[in-house]
Amino acid sequence: MTPDPIVAADLRINPRWIIPVQPAGAVLEDHAVLIQGDRIAAVVSNQEADERYRAKETINLPDHVVLPGLINMHGHAAMSLFRGMADDLPLMTWLNDHIWPAEGQFVDAAFIATGTQLAMAEMLRTGTTTFSDMYFFPEIAAQVAHDAGMRAQICFPLLDFPTIWGSGPDEYFDKGRAIIEQWRDDSRIMPAIGPHAPYTVSNGPLATARTLADETGAKIQIHLHETAFEVTEALRQNNQRPVQRLASLGLLGPDTQCVHMTQIDDSDIRALTSSGAHIVHCPESNLKLASGLCPVQQLTDAGINVTLGTDGAASNNDHDMFGEMNTAAMIGKVVADDAAAVSAHQTIAMATLNGARALGREDELGSLEAGKLADLIAVDLGDPFLQPVYDPASHLVYSNHGRQVTHSWIGGIPQVQNGQLTRIDVPDLMLRVREWSAKISRR
Amino acid sequence: MTPDPIVAADLRINPRWIIPVQPAGAVLEDHAVLIQGDRIAAVVSNQEADERYRAKETINLPDHVVLPGLINMHGHAAMSLFRGMADDLPLMTWLNDHIWPAEGQFVDAAFIATGTQLAMAEMLRTGTTTFSDMYFFPEIAAQVAHDAGMRAQICFPLLDFPTIWGSGPDEYFDKGRAIIEQWRDDSRIMPAIGPHAPYTVSNGPLATARTLADETGAKIQIHLHETAFEVTEALRQNNQRPVQRLASLGLLGPDTQCVHMTQIDDSDIRALTSSGAHIVHCPESNLKLASGLCPVQQLTDAGINVTLGTDGAASNNDHDMFGEMNTAAMIGKVVADDAAAVSAHQTIAMATLNGARALGREDELGSLEAGKLADLIAVDLGDPFLQPVYDPASHLVYSNHGRQVTHSWIGGIPQVQNGQLTRIDVPDLMLRVREWSAKISRR
Repeated sequence: MTPDPIVAADLRINPRWIIPVQPAGAVLEDHAVLIQGDRIAAVVSNQEADERYRAKETINLPDHVVLPGLINMHGHAAMSLFRGMADDLPLMTWLNDHIWPAEGQFVDAAFIATGTQLAMAEMLRTGTTTFSDMYFFPEIAAQVAHDAGMRAQICFPLLDFPTIWGSGPDEYFDKGRAIIEQWRDDSRIMPAIGPHAPYTVSNGPLATARTLADETGAKIQIHLHETAFEVTEALRQNNQRPVQRLASLGLLGPDTQCVHMTQIDDSDIRALTSSGAHIVHCPESNLKLASGLCPVQQLTDAGINVTLGTDGAASNNDHDMFGEMNTAAMIGKVVADDAAAVSAHQTIAMATLNGARALGREDELGSLEAGKLADLIAVDLGDPFLQPVYDPASHLVYSNHGRQVTHSWIGGIPQVQNGQLTRIDVPDLMLRVREWSAKISRR
Repeated sequence: MTPDPIVAADLRINPRWIIPVQPAGAVLEDHAVLIQGDRIAAVVSNQEADERYRAKETINLPDHVVLPGLINMHGHAAMSLFRGMADDLPLMTWLNDHIWPAEGQFVDAAFIATGTQLAMAEMLRTGTTTFSDMYFFPEIAAQVAHDAGMRAQICFPLLDFPTIWGSGPDEYFDKGRAIIEQWRDDSRIMPAIGPHAPYTVSNGPLATARTLADETGAKIQIHLHETAFEVTEALRQNNQRPVQRLASLGLLGPDTQCVHMTQIDDSDIRALTSSGAHIVHCPESNLKLASGLCPVQQLTDAGINVTLGTDGAASNNDHDMFGEMNTAAMIGKVVADDAAAVSAHQTIAMATLNGARALGREDELGSLEAGKLADLIAVDLGDPFLQPVYDPASHLVYSNHGRQVTHSWIGGIPQVQNGQLTRIDVPDLMLRVREWSAKISRR
């Protein structure tokens, strides 16, 4: 009998714990992650790693937990430049008197580049490796995300009316098709279609969105049932709940990501379940704007895939997915009236594998398994003020925040090392942020 | 006309912003805080500080906001050694199968000393200068809080039945009276009476608690209306809501702190308002244990003083009051169905001045005003991932976490400097925490 041949690897990571997400609920100790090229070569015991693998480089992380990179499924990255500009206001005052005028005055290609970089820097620093974006000038967001080495779903916006990015649906689709064409074969940039909401997009453009999705494989992301007002107004105007209208238009499918969903009845659950559509839960935005509560456990029990997003920094006001996980787990329990609902492991899956599913990339992302892309992060639980640690999954969700992230890799390429970003020039970025901030403060 | 004489001060702090809490909503720029002895000598413009004051020492904090030290109004500090030991469980499973057995097995004077120090270290690091504690061996907690230089309300526990700390109400009162006697003239340690809850303390001991409070001036803190079950059981057994029962026993007064209050009707509000009792809101504990939602804005509008607490680290799972403020502001809006409810400034007041009111020390604590005790903290908002900053109050509540605290003083004595604790030996503490953690893991 010949021994197994020695396998070469670029990198071996030896953490205290590994939470691979798949199998669900697992916490591995005395295990290593091996990376070769842009892929995970193996997640094996240290003994097997010693015997079978020879790595060019080894990183020891004795107090750390390694898990898949987080997938932030909804946001408006460039709005980070409006972070904390206007808070504690009713939704319509916030939009009419603050956000929309500021967008009209300031948002251009340069704003998008700097704002998206600022958001990406914060996301990388706090453990996100993939994000979904929906904002003006998506062609700029796609380019800066690509240049930073992040994985990103870039949804081009679609509305009935003119905006700073275009004159109306025809132009949005023309520009959107060009973005899909440009990036369709890219591993990291995933172009998608972003109809804003049922109340801002009429049936014609929604039908065109469905056709475009079917033709190109691009996903559809839409704000849906964000507030009670949205649902009651739709019932008043069309005698139809928005979910039902989208279902009847054929817009709901396994390629559809429904963002928010705070107002849900049994008919909605049936429509969502039978369509295979995904939900993007944004708990902090829903709370802060007093939009409502998404019944995460009920939806999960119905077989619906629930993912997690921060929403934009103007309504959150950060991009820390660990904070979002904490809020999701806590609020999920009180909404379900059950302290066992939305458990720590379940919440970590929402922020990783469930996001990969919604992106249609569960074969490549969202868990630490041999053959998947090497998108992973390390979190230091050795900090004195996090002690003691009985269960690293509990700590990640209930005691941690994103700043404990020390390392991050996307497709095997280091993005964060010892808490420092490797690909974004933070001092240069800060100079540009300060310029925008001064300009916006003077408005 | 003779010029004003030059006034001597021990310390001048020059931050970018000051949020004094009083006057409500104020954000001062180009101002300084002057400290003399254990008191705030002045909060004045830099010009006035230059002209009138001569400080022995000056600290420049160019990216920081200075505010009163945070007051954590409810917790069980030593339970930090059980942090994350058992999560995602129904309340009674959590208590019966995990917390109570572990308490019986491990809690003794040494456990209390180490656990309380661990909690204090985390609280200091994250901006808390005063905390309230309710746990076994309060005489030990009082001593270690005193030794660490923290301000603390130490509630001795009172229950109908025997515990690891005593045989029943008679012994609890004997020991409690001794603690009150020992500390009654201390500026930092505030002994108080801690009847556990209406369902664990019968009318006799509650009446004795009222008498003891009247005789000594000690405050009363009690868990109240934490869950719907507590209220429905009380109605079933006594045909009386717990708040009404306490009111009829004379237990509710301006010296009473009611912890949790997630189940509230109009009669409760009337009883609380007319009594002058205070509420301690613990939103993260209420969410995580699926206890319920406290209607903070409604209570505040009724004129009731609402303060903030983290609860114990076994049910939170941290002592970061910035995280608690974030959760309180967010959940307060959705409960009030109003994005303008529980504003950033209001939340900061809950965590400072309102706590001082509940402690009966609003003349000395809770805001930055000349003559008050110099309990204050500095928070660094210069971090790249917090940019831009338009409103420091918004950032403190919506974007910050406790680790951005860089400095803290209690009664003018430095407790945290450049993020390092000055009075607690963290490496030595960690050795003892590791020993406890190993022992508890093996249970």
